Amino acid sequence: MKKLLPAQYNLEFENMLPEGLAIFAAARGDVAQAEFKIAAKNSVSKYSRFGYDEQTWARFESRLNYRRLGFEDIEDYRKLESELEGLEKLHGKPVGRVYYLAASPEYFSSIVKNLRDSGMSRGEGSYRRLVIEKPFGSSLASARRLNREIRSAFPEESIYRIDHYLGKEMIQNIMSIRFANAIFEPVWNSRHIDNIQISILEDTGIEGRGEYYENSGALRDMVQNHIVQLMSLVMMERPKSLDPEAIRDQKVKIIKKISGITPEDIDKNLIIGQYAEGVIDGENIAGYRHESEVAEDSATETFAALKLNVSNARWKGVSVYVRTGKRLNERLVGIVVEFKDFSSIYGLEAYRGLAPNLLIIKIYPEEGISLQFNMKKPGSFDKIVPFSMSYCKSCEFRKFTPEAYERLIHDVLEGDSTLYARWDEIERAWMLIDSILDCKVRKRENLHLYSAGSSGPKEADRLLEKDGRHWW
Amino acid sequence: MKKLLPAQYNLEFENMLPEGLAIFAAARGDVAQAEFKIAAKNSVSKYSRFGYDEQTWARFESRLNYRRLGFEDIEDYRKLESELEGLEKLHGKPVGRVYYLAASPEYFSSIVKNLRDSGMSRGEGSYRRLVIEKPFGSSLASARRLNREIRSAFPEESIYRIDHYLGKEMIQNIMSIRFANAIFEPVWNSRHIDNIQISILEDTGIEGRGEYYENSGALRDMVQNHIVQLMSLVMMERPKSLDPEAIRDQKVKIIKKISGITPEDIDKNLIIGQYAEGVIDGENIAGYRHESEVAEDSATETFAALKLNVSNARWKGVSVYVRTGKRLNERLVGIVVEFKDFSSIYGLEAYRGLAPNLLIIKIYPEEGISLQFNMKKPGSFDKIVPFSMSYCKSCEFRKFTPEAYERLIHDVLEGDSTLYARWDEIERAWMLIDSILDCKVRKRENLHLYSAGSSGPKEADRLLEKDGRHWW
Repeated sequence: MKKLLPAQYNLEFENMLPEGLAIFAAARGDVAQAEFKIAAKNSVSKYSRFGYDEQTWARFESRLNYRRLGFEDIEDYRKLESELEGLEKLHGKPVGRVYYLAASPEYFSSIVKNLRDSGMSRGEGSYRRLVIEKPFGSSLASARRLNREIRSAFPEESIYRIDHYLGKEMIQNIMSIRFANAIFEPVWNSRHIDNIQISILEDTGIEGRGEYYENSGALRDMVQNHIVQLMSLVMMERPKSLDPEAIRDQKVKIIKKISGITPEDIDKNLIIGQYAEGVIDGENIAGYRHESEVAEDSATETFAALKLNVSNARWKGVSVYVRTGKRLNERLVGIVVEFKDFSSIYGLEAYRGLAPNLLIIKIYPEEGISLQFNMKKPGSFDKIVPFSMSYCKSCEFRKFTPEAYERLIHDVLEGDSTLYARWDEIERAWMLIDSILDCKVRKRENLHLYSAGSSGPKEADRLLEKDGRHWW
Repeated sequence: MKKLLPAQYNLEFENMLPEGLAIFAAARGDVAQAEFKIAAKNSVSKYSRFGYDEQTWARFESRLNYRRLGFEDIEDYRKLESELEGLEKLHGKPVGRVYYLAASPEYFSSIVKNLRDSGMSRGEGSYRRLVIEKPFGSSLASARRLNREIRSAFPEESIYRIDHYLGKEMIQNIMSIRFANAIFEPVWNSRHIDNIQISILEDTGIEGRGEYYENSGALRDMVQNHIVQLMSLVMMERPKSLDPEAIRDQKVKIIKKISGITPEDIDKNLIIGQYAEGVIDGENIAGYRHESEVAEDSATETFAALKLNVSNARWKGVSVYVRTGKRLNERLVGIVVEFKDFSSIYGLEAYRGLAPNLLIIKIYPEEGISLQFNMKKPGSFDKIVPFSMSYCKSCEFRKFTPEAYERLIHDVLEGDSTLYARWDEIERAWMLIDSILDCKVRKRENLHLYSAGSSGPKEADRLLEKDGRHWW
């Protein structure tokens, strides 16, 4: 109601839904058709970036259907299948279908199994695509199990694994910035880049998802998917083309090469933390261990900072610092590429020790790009100081920027999987996270408590300080 | 009164004039000391960027002296020398001197000869520096003659040849941008740069200098000095250090390598024009041939556009388009570096035909830098369009930006010749201009008339259009 229906409605508003598309909302509740439509209308009025529009709503409403579906009851699937087949016959030719699993992960297996056993996963002359929301498993083993189950019903090319981060405009722009501009590629390597910093900071907490989060934590919840995806986009080699497979081939190569977390250096390169009570915006915030469904002595990390490397020719020696956490003092998502200085690459002693060039890709709250560079300090004779030039996309275009889900729904209808994660990307990311978790970092003595509303554990700052760097 | 005194006063305001510095204004008129000071006070009040300040003026006034000096009368020089010697004795130790020739060029020879013959050009244990304003000659031969005369009085290291363009902050920033930032050097070559464009456009005319301009024209008046200097700063190799000689060594290497103007390709690569009558800001403007002291059939160019090359390893194949003109539709000085597109360098067909990356160094009216780059068009799914990020120095710092003359006067007092032209730079630039003029391009049939207030002759646009490019 908050994300998917408004996203589909937005596509309707922009005339981007295919003609004849029907939408079946299938869930366990006994909800009357009319009741569902009223709820849907309220939801698009409230959450669509275009707001309620009578004509758009009329077109959109005519596509909407609600069907009761017991997720574990194969008879319900058979009924739905025969209804859809009936519609297909009316239409006169095979019709493609997208199954979008916006359900609790515990049902993924049952749903996929029933789609298979009811015959719904196979089309005759038309496609059957499966969209599956995160989390894709909670470990390498569970992800592999889930993948086996899905693959028993759908071939890899029909599976669309959502990481909704990939639907965000500025994240797609990472590729545009790198490959639609020739000026960045020559400096995009260890000769010119000193380090890369990726931050996904949240001021919100676990928002009632205590049971899920206790079994997850920041490494599984944010690093395994979003942060690994951002790293691979920033660090991938040039793809041969912009075809989905060419791009994902390059991304997975980077994920395979992520290193830095071995049993020997885990203590040096990983900082985990958990929020204690504190104050955000004047409001008292309970510590994580006082959230509902959270153990009183929980050792689950709500913050993680890592120093990683990508061990290939382009990135040898470049440290990649990543961090994510909940209940911090700000909500911010961004990537900072810090360049080496001119003197250290080319000599010219007179300019040693200047501020570094920074290329900043801003994802939230501002969307845009900025470049820090050096020039003479105005009014001084020879002092060189840093300046910044920026482009703020969100300042100009907020209303015109599609939501991540619009893009993703549009793409699955078009059969474009570029912005979806392929199995080997997910598998490799889980191998990374498992190797970290295997190091038993979640022992209580490794967990640094930080106050809600702070910038996280001080140890995350020291992770960079000991290298003579700091978080930008 | 308009430039030099206010510049010195500004340095006074900023406490950048050396203690004990005395200023002697020496000219032909019989002007009383008090009268001169009143005129000076009026001039700083009107033209200083800091305006009149009582304490500053009191300090500055105490330095000021006026002396009558017949430029061609050696006795006047001897009198001045003995007065200065007297001051030196009072001071108790040798005192350095700067002779600043802010006189009409026709007197340069006489002044320098008299400085020599009166013994003023030689100091005992202290420096004697000569600052000479442009134009430095009007041809290779006359420049060499002038240089010989000056060198008979002063050694090269004591001669400061002004190109006041070099005193402008954004022109000094060309070096800062290139060498205080590591991100530009890797793309600063023919592999990544498609072409470079340098424009010095004026809306003003010849401002009563008809006699001078008839014997000069745009090539001598603007290309020989300012444009050649800008080219050399943009295109020079990295100097070993920031010492004046290291920098000027690199600049002169570039000037030596400027090519593109031979008798065979002069018609293709040079466009000259002369303004005819027209309208600027609603005002009727007379054509150049109706200016006073200009011949009715004058063939002097008031506009020149050239396609040049620098024939070295870094710049092979990069076209450099330069243009300058008077009575155009705007006053604008800037440099545009147009980069090749990603596809043409690295492949990736999907991104072929995008707008180029542009690095724009803005010198007038705005001072700053901007970078055109490509990203997704917001709200579109895959359309890539150009955006621009900018830093406008003058928007923030206009009042804090020293005038070109402040910087230049400060530097000559410090003995720093970085921003002054060395003889070999000037000689090489005259060789270039003479080679152009030798091609007899000033035949009337080559001169394109353009309306005052227009953007210049259309032929200057075609100079780029035939290469598939355009002026940015």
